[in-house]
Amino acid sequence: MGAPDTEPGRLITLEGGEGAGKSSQIDVVAECLRALGHEVVVTREPGGTRLGEAVRAVLMTEFDTPMPAMSELLLMFAARAAHLAEVIEPALARGAWVVSDRFTDASYAYQGAARGLGDEAVATLEHLVQKDRRPDGVLLFDLPVAIGLERAGRRGQGNRFDRETIVFHERVRAAYLARARAAPARYRVIDASAPVEVVRSQIRTALAAWT
Amino acid sequence: MGAPDTEPGRLITLEGGEGAGKSSQIDVVAECLRALGHEVVVTREPGGTRLGEAVRAVLMTEFDTPMPAMSELLLMFAARAAHLAEVIEPALARGAWVVSDRFTDASYAYQGAARGLGDEAVATLEHLVQKDRRPDGVLLFDLPVAIGLERAGRRGQGNRFDRETIVFHERVRAAYLARARAAPARYRVIDASAPVEVVRSQIRTALAAWT
Repeated sequence: MGAPDTEPGRLITLEGGEGAGKSSQIDVVAECLRALGHEVVVTREPGGTRLGEAVRAVLMTEFDTPMPAMSELLLMFAARAAHLAEVIEPALARGAWVVSDRFTDASYAYQGAARGLGDEAVATLEHLVQKDRRPDGVLLFDLPVAIGLERAGRRGQGNRFDRETIVFHERVRAAYLARARAAPARYRVIDASAPVEVVRSQIRTALAAWT
Repeated sequence: MGAPDTEPGRLITLEGGEGAGKSSQIDVVAECLRALGHEVVVTREPGGTRLGEAVRAVLMTEFDTPMPAMSELLLMFAARAAHLAEVIEPALARGAWVVSDRFTDASYAYQGAARGLGDEAVATLEHLVQKDRRPDGVLLFDLPVAIGLERAGRRGQGNRFDRETIVFHERVRAAYLARARAAPARYRVIDASAPVEVVRSQIRTALAAWT
């Protein structure tokens, strides 16, 4: 329970490629916001609901034929629609801040750019599913692809996405950085290759700008 | 293997509410088309691929909270994108006729009309996923809702959709009939409450118009 908020909460998302350390840093983000007296809801995509976790399991399955990129994109948004309806919108409405490990920027970077579906397909679904809902702030955890994959490999979390080519992950990174450059007020690029204390300090500075 | 076809195949879909008998009659449709020398691929939605069957399982699951209609619609199209890429388009390209137990008309009837998402949301996804692909012929198995539900109940196939209200199923039926009226060349309404031999005769007459 945070202090009573009279205004609606905000949606802060953590984005970045494999091994960027989002999942380890999400608690730091939540701590900072709680210290300011906000109720904080920590969640993730794909997932965040029972339906979302079931869809996540389908997304991570290796089928006998590669999953079409359009199916992947639609599954992400199917999970997102439930995530918004059941978790995000109710939390924001009561004044809580929502911190999500990935959101729609990931659809632009992974399915739109790296899988080649294009921004327009993602934008169509974003409009259909989210109406005007967009993140109020995006923390982009950026680091060279080789370092990220090496870290992800060390964690032993290999999945269908980790095993994509270097070129795929370079496209993801480039797309994320391009989105950050296009809307600098809403994005903060965190140097995720820095020592952990430096990363934390960057997070605190970024959040200070939005709170 | 059918006789060699020089022209692309056609997509014939079977539509209708619960208990309308589509699944029992689909073999009759396939037989008629094979008798004309066509290669016939029989398939169904949601499903038709490994991914599609996994998505179907999610769609049929009862979660602790009702599935948002938009998630349901997006899951249907996620399965459909794979169905088109892996089954329907390759079959049509080699000249085979594809007979599918349900296709996009079901999205208009169930999610667009009965769940209230509206035709525009369905049309947006239809365009995104199918480009110009539409069924060449739709056999609409129509019967009063009470009879259909009674039949479906007798088969013991109760699922999340069967258990919807009568009003829901009436909306599904009305939406299907409205779509058939709007494009009479592409739809044939089969009186699914008629005796089985009469139904078969109606199917043969309908197919004769398209072949």
